[in-house]
Amino acid sequence: MSLTPQAALAELNQKTRTISHLYSCASLLGWDERTHMPPKGGLHRAEQLALLAGMAHERTVDPRIGELLDAVRNSSLVADPYGDATVIVREVSRTYERAAKMPQSLVEEITRTASLGQTAWEEARAKSEYAIFKPWLAKMLDLKKQEAEAVGYQDDPYNALLDDYEPGATVATAETILTQLRAELVGLLDKIRGSSRRPNLNILDRPYPVDRQKDFGRLCSEAIGFDYQQGRLDITVHPFCTGIGPGDTRITTRYDDKNLAYALFSTLHESGHGIYDQGLDPRQFGTPLGESISLGIHESQSRMWENMVGRSRAFWVHFFPKAQRAFPEALGTVTLDDFYFVINDVRPSFIRTEADEATYNLHILLRFELERAIFSGNLSVDELPAVWNEKFKASFGLTPSKDSEGCLQDVHWSCGYIGYFPTYSLGNLYAAQFFAQARLDLGDLDAMFARGDFAPLKEWLRTRIHSQGRRYRAADLVQRVTGKPLSPAPLMCYMNAKFGALYGF
Amino acid sequence: MSLTPQAALAELNQKTRTISHLYSCASLLGWDERTHMPPKGGLHRAEQLALLAGMAHERTVDPRIGELLDAVRNSSLVADPYGDATVIVREVSRTYERAAKMPQSLVEEITRTASLGQTAWEEARAKSEYAIFKPWLAKMLDLKKQEAEAVGYQDDPYNALLDDYEPGATVATAETILTQLRAELVGLLDKIRGSSRRPNLNILDRPYPVDRQKDFGRLCSEAIGFDYQQGRLDITVHPFCTGIGPGDTRITTRYDDKNLAYALFSTLHESGHGIYDQGLDPRQFGTPLGESISLGIHESQSRMWENMVGRSRAFWVHFFPKAQRAFPEALGTVTLDDFYFVINDVRPSFIRTEADEATYNLHILLRFELERAIFSGNLSVDELPAVWNEKFKASFGLTPSKDSEGCLQDVHWSCGYIGYFPTYSLGNLYAAQFFAQARLDLGDLDAMFARGDFAPLKEWLRTRIHSQGRRYRAADLVQRVTGKPLSPAPLMCYMNAKFGALYGF
Repeated sequence: MSLTPQAALAELNQKTRTISHLYSCASLLGWDERTHMPPKGGLHRAEQLALLAGMAHERTVDPRIGELLDAVRNSSLVADPYGDATVIVREVSRTYERAAKMPQSLVEEITRTASLGQTAWEEARAKSEYAIFKPWLAKMLDLKKQEAEAVGYQDDPYNALLDDYEPGATVATAETILTQLRAELVGLLDKIRGSSRRPNLNILDRPYPVDRQKDFGRLCSEAIGFDYQQGRLDITVHPFCTGIGPGDTRITTRYDDKNLAYALFSTLHESGHGIYDQGLDPRQFGTPLGESISLGIHESQSRMWENMVGRSRAFWVHFFPKAQRAFPEALGTVTLDDFYFVINDVRPSFIRTEADEATYNLHILLRFELERAIFSGNLSVDELPAVWNEKFKASFGLTPSKDSEGCLQDVHWSCGYIGYFPTYSLGNLYAAQFFAQARLDLGDLDAMFARGDFAPLKEWLRTRIHSQGRRYRAADLVQRVTGKPLSPAPLMCYMNAKFGALYGF
Repeated sequence: MSLTPQAALAELNQKTRTISHLYSCASLLGWDERTHMPPKGGLHRAEQLALLAGMAHERTVDPRIGELLDAVRNSSLVADPYGDATVIVREVSRTYERAAKMPQSLVEEITRTASLGQTAWEEARAKSEYAIFKPWLAKMLDLKKQEAEAVGYQDDPYNALLDDYEPGATVATAETILTQLRAELVGLLDKIRGSSRRPNLNILDRPYPVDRQKDFGRLCSEAIGFDYQQGRLDITVHPFCTGIGPGDTRITTRYDDKNLAYALFSTLHESGHGIYDQGLDPRQFGTPLGESISLGIHESQSRMWENMVGRSRAFWVHFFPKAQRAFPEALGTVTLDDFYFVINDVRPSFIRTEADEATYNLHILLRFELERAIFSGNLSVDELPAVWNEKFKASFGLTPSKDSEGCLQDVHWSCGYIGYFPTYSLGNLYAAQFFAQARLDLGDLDAMFARGDFAPLKEWLRTRIHSQGRRYRAADLVQRVTGKPLSPAPLMCYMNAKFGALYGF
């Protein structure tokens, strides 16, 4: 019986939908593990997740998918380069081929090493003893080199890893743009360092009762467009967002009863991720047309809502009076401008996740540079801590006093997430370029924010980005939405204007 | 290659473990659906659950299971009638053969009818319009008759359904024992009706702040032995307990800020279910040796902790001073004896789930009688409401004013749970017979409860019942643990003593 291209496409969609449902079950189990699971539920949860992952993987490499892809690929269904069938073939092929090239033994070894390596890293970080983590890092690097060789690459093995997180990105393009960014950032930070203005940090370091923080955070996240009919906000240790599926997107945060910014900006950040997931086309669930594009594009949404919206003066024109009513003891006598300044305080610090908007990308650039060096063998795992500290001093003017505030601070490498860090900076660049275009298209965004109206921006993002699924790769999307290739100019323009006004240059 | 019985058993255990893991994932999804899922997550959740159920079913009827069962069944591994391999073969065969006999079309039709029928029932109950539910009930009865014919039975088709919930039970044995119970209950209720003593109901109908109820309920459930390192307590609409797997058992309740008993006894009830699940052998997860025996035995654990422990005077000797401290406004001037009386108030009422210990089983007996009549065709669906009301009047001296407080009150029939109700009464009978034996074995339980020591009872139950898994069928277990076959005597003896003291006869 011959298979029509239409029938092949329908069967293919059904197969990828089943795989997505399995991952979606795993997402709920993962969310529960980090928010609600009882302390002793971990062993059983690991077995549940291993079973689901195994079933999903088995279906991902099902040779029938290859046959179906061929049947669609060689038909008139793929005439339009951005048509539904073309996108589906392009993206499913990518996943299928990558998975099919990975030996099962390598997949299992990476999974096992990530699990054990993460445990070792936790101990190493807690004790600030790099030696505990070093053999695991060496082993993971070796495995990830094997992965790059197995899946193949152009020019540089690092591209094989970067492409897994940011399809279509290459180390050459990323390096070009991030090197430009570094030069400009150094200039900006020099100007800030030269300013005599500094915010009053004490404003944030006051009692902010957690119950009221919860209400206020929810108020803000709902106002910017996170839909609680289709989502939840829970407490966890390391905040994350997880899209369970259509109608169910979950964000998390954590509270410090002495610091308002700590939970609030993480809530806005995760809301940004959540708004993206809630904007995906539910009818396309389980096909590439119902999935997010890349880590970098996802991060662009979270950083835009967290920083470009949530740390804007206009946002606080609307919300500061509400914050004063919610926290009269802490904020009753504070002015809007003093508050706006303190949430935009810029100063070099050791920990990436606590960094301000202006220094954040320097943290990423350091990691990008070091992970390429260590992955290529130009830097040995023995040298890593010393070189980290030396480079950190060069960028930030500070030297970490221990490795837990240096090269041991991030979990990523222990999990095998090499090639992941640059997506954070790409996300910031995408965000600024999209945001600048939204200002052009929508007019006075500040006036909208000042009256609490975030719907036009959300709708603009939904139409152009969220609802498109993976129709365009990140670079194509940027070109289509903004009419230009990705550049550091919009981000630097935004930061120079913002920090120039705050610091007076 | 010939399969050794040992290898066959190992493969069989691996297969049933995988099935159990799939159900375990579904359990977490089901728990989440009823506790945390956002309002619009329902459609996607239904698809996730359908996928998992389909995968589990496919594996349950895998012909390879039949081959493995044969290989073990015809070996020396099954020499001991209660040995591990024998129990595994007995119980897996039962599930496998039942599933294999059910035509896939019938399974799907029952699933569909249950889903639509439950929606119809919800509307019918809300409007108290039996006509809305009647066609769905008729259809479900027809499908359940087909199920009975498909799976086969001895003597009475109803046995095929009852056996699904209470393996080994038959309508003949259940009817014999429940008819005896009815006669004795009528006598007990006559005596209570004849007493002039009545508790002061107003004691429970006072403000009990929900936050403090949560703390107090948790205190009590933890004291009786529910382990929060391996479990959680959440809020839901209809309380339930779900065992996710080893180390993870979840109970739920709901609060009324004007009534202490409402949440507290449901918490103790679900804790009893939870203590059973937490007492299963974790090494046997996924085999019949790590599973609970039957609905009736499960219910015996919940009812024992709720009623025989939680509504005992000795329990409140320990907890009443704590309750007075937690709720000084409501209980500050109440005496222990007045409190003990009001939580054991007996009076006829329409709604089963709100019934007291003494009248509860009459509600079950009514349903058992009517569902047999309607299933056998001796009663038509047209006649059901009138006959319900007539029989209810005969048992309780009251006539329901509307069907929502009569034959429309329970969800069970809409879901196809026919043969389920008698397990509630069997559970009460098992509970009393076990509890009487525990008193004999352990000595002065009241003295233990009065000092807050529930560990000996929990340990007694764990050793004899929980950790045994499905090694014994319910009737065997009763015989082994108590040395006698099941009888209504222990329950009536317990109730006559308790209510005789309270009501003065």
